[in-house]
Amino acid sequence: MIHSDRILMGPGPSNPYPEVMEAFARPVLGHLDPEFISLLDETNDRLREVWQTKNALTFPISATGSAGMETSFVNFISPGDEVVVGVNGVFGNRMCDVASRAGAVVTKVEEDWGRAIDPERLLTAHPNPKMIAVVHAETSTGVRNDIHDLGAGKGDALLLVDCVTSLGGIPVLIDEWAVDIAYSGTQKCLGVPPGLSPVTVSDRAMERLVETPQSWYLDLNMIKDYVTGDGARAYHHTAPISMLYALHAGLGVVINEGLQQAWERHQSCGDELHRCLPELGFDLWAQEGHRLPELTTVSIPDGLDDVEGRQHLLNRYGIEVGGGLGPVAGKVWRIGCMGHTAQMRNVKMLLGALEELTAHLR
Amino acid sequence: MIHSDRILMGPGPSNPYPEVMEAFARPVLGHLDPEFISLLDETNDRLREVWQTKNALTFPISATGSAGMETSFVNFISPGDEVVVGVNGVFGNRMCDVASRAGAVVTKVEEDWGRAIDPERLLTAHPNPKMIAVVHAETSTGVRNDIHDLGAGKGDALLLVDCVTSLGGIPVLIDEWAVDIAYSGTQKCLGVPPGLSPVTVSDRAMERLVETPQSWYLDLNMIKDYVTGDGARAYHHTAPISMLYALHAGLGVVINEGLQQAWERHQSCGDELHRCLPELGFDLWAQEGHRLPELTTVSIPDGLDDVEGRQHLLNRYGIEVGGGLGPVAGKVWRIGCMGHTAQMRNVKMLLGALEELTAHLR
Repeated sequence: MIHSDRILMGPGPSNPYPEVMEAFARPVLGHLDPEFISLLDETNDRLREVWQTKNALTFPISATGSAGMETSFVNFISPGDEVVVGVNGVFGNRMCDVASRAGAVVTKVEEDWGRAIDPERLLTAHPNPKMIAVVHAETSTGVRNDIHDLGAGKGDALLLVDCVTSLGGIPVLIDEWAVDIAYSGTQKCLGVPPGLSPVTVSDRAMERLVETPQSWYLDLNMIKDYVTGDGARAYHHTAPISMLYALHAGLGVVINEGLQQAWERHQSCGDELHRCLPELGFDLWAQEGHRLPELTTVSIPDGLDDVEGRQHLLNRYGIEVGGGLGPVAGKVWRIGCMGHTAQMRNVKMLLGALEELTAHLR
Repeated sequence: MIHSDRILMGPGPSNPYPEVMEAFARPVLGHLDPEFISLLDETNDRLREVWQTKNALTFPISATGSAGMETSFVNFISPGDEVVVGVNGVFGNRMCDVASRAGAVVTKVEEDWGRAIDPERLLTAHPNPKMIAVVHAETSTGVRNDIHDLGAGKGDALLLVDCVTSLGGIPVLIDEWAVDIAYSGTQKCLGVPPGLSPVTVSDRAMERLVETPQSWYLDLNMIKDYVTGDGARAYHHTAPISMLYALHAGLGVVINEGLQQAWERHQSCGDELHRCLPELGFDLWAQEGHRLPELTTVSIPDGLDDVEGRQHLLNRYGIEVGGGLGPVAGKVWRIGCMGHTAQMRNVKMLLGALEELTAHLR
């Protein structure tokens, strides 16, 4: 089976760093091998740097980003707990679904798709919630919801933030923003294939862990005895060894470059896309001032067919861009520029391809 | 960070096939790319062959084996449902824990660790259970529990079987044995690194799916719209692309060799270990007639220290063998010979190393 060499400019996965692909070739170690435990510890140290946190419990869940979301609810929510969730896209809605399955009573704070949620509305939606949950970078809309005011105003609530599409691409400051629980994915701005979900949990949140969560696989009380601590580790489940090599390597690339520099690289690619796409007839769709540099949503120009247009890009140029989800399916495209994809040469390549694609409209 | 090149002869992971390591190098595709959907379909076809089933819903869960276990309970069990679980090791106990978290009323059928469970006891433990669950190959003890009588006698119950350490190593005949739900792991006899959990579900079980299981990530009602069917697939979560390349390649190796031949290869390696280990002072620990060829448990000889002995094998020879879990920690070793490790040359290598290790005892 032959696979094409795509330029991945959809909402994720992004192209992985070459160092990440090299890491996959390393010999497999046992999950209790001292050499593997060292790599896991170093991976978690690197994650602390990328998350900008000192949280002791910082590690990758052995599944993709949505499992990180589920981990973040089932370990802190008991039936009947009040949870405020910001909803302005697919992933806010998913949070409501996951929270409800854990028995939460959900108060939705809804905003139009494509617009950011006013933090004040999240803080005042319920007098005393157990948790306030919001998506930092909405992968379905390309919108950034601001987090920094939520930590100061959260009161007794735990603050949960979805950083799947933000971590490594724009500033995520877990400790400075007083975020209690956050999760991400490997396949966006970290430049690693999908398969793991980095999470971080504050000491304050650790004191409120549900004793026996409904999920065994995602039970932080059990997992923490494997992923943290000195010396021997208690076996919980078999860690996905090769994916951890890949994440370790991807984090190494980001840290070698410098986190600030990685943010700037994503920003400059996004700025160029935002400047040039409207000139080609692709109007920017997300609210000004809240546009993600790493994921740009554009309206599909009149006269251009959604599916045919994306197929043309894929078949003629090997470039993947993403379609819209849910209510904006067929109306918007999602153009990602994340991880190893986030290079100006890829921006130019896409713009050239789009110019050809839309020539007949001009 | 340098990693040693281990010969993995513990309870898993095993050494991956070279073809699997090559597959990791393939360019990453998007999870909705037609080329990736083709690979997923072909992977699922290969899984049907290895599972010996025609079940439409046969695919890998995007997490390790224990998530397959959780999937198998939460999608079929509602609070108050009666479940019979066979317990003669760690993984039978884990089934009870996972089932209880889904609200099951569990009837345990216990047997001494190291001995097999009489199928008749599982069939008569409860007059009308919703489910009968048992581990085929107990990774903690090296014991095979027989499955073939359970399907015929299960009545209205669903039959759930843990095949983590059996699939690809000894006969697993899902359709012939009338197994309704089964899960496995990639890192044992399939010769692929850990990270995915192949599952298969009978049509009979599909008719009894819980409508909204407590887990969103493992919700089969939602996942089936992505992993099966013709044409466009509904996005659920981002599939772990590179791990799927690896599994696809590993299954290809097994099928090219021939499933029967792969079983025989595991059997002949196990036979040789069973013949030679007692001569070196390592008495076979599991019940005769129920010993797994792919995972041999032995008593640690008097005068040999558990931890020091395993460290010596690791440091001097780069060979990993596994210690005992729970009540048999410090008493037994677990010697795996699975996947690409299952070659007679590795058997000879280990026996040579053990001869040196125990020379002072003779």
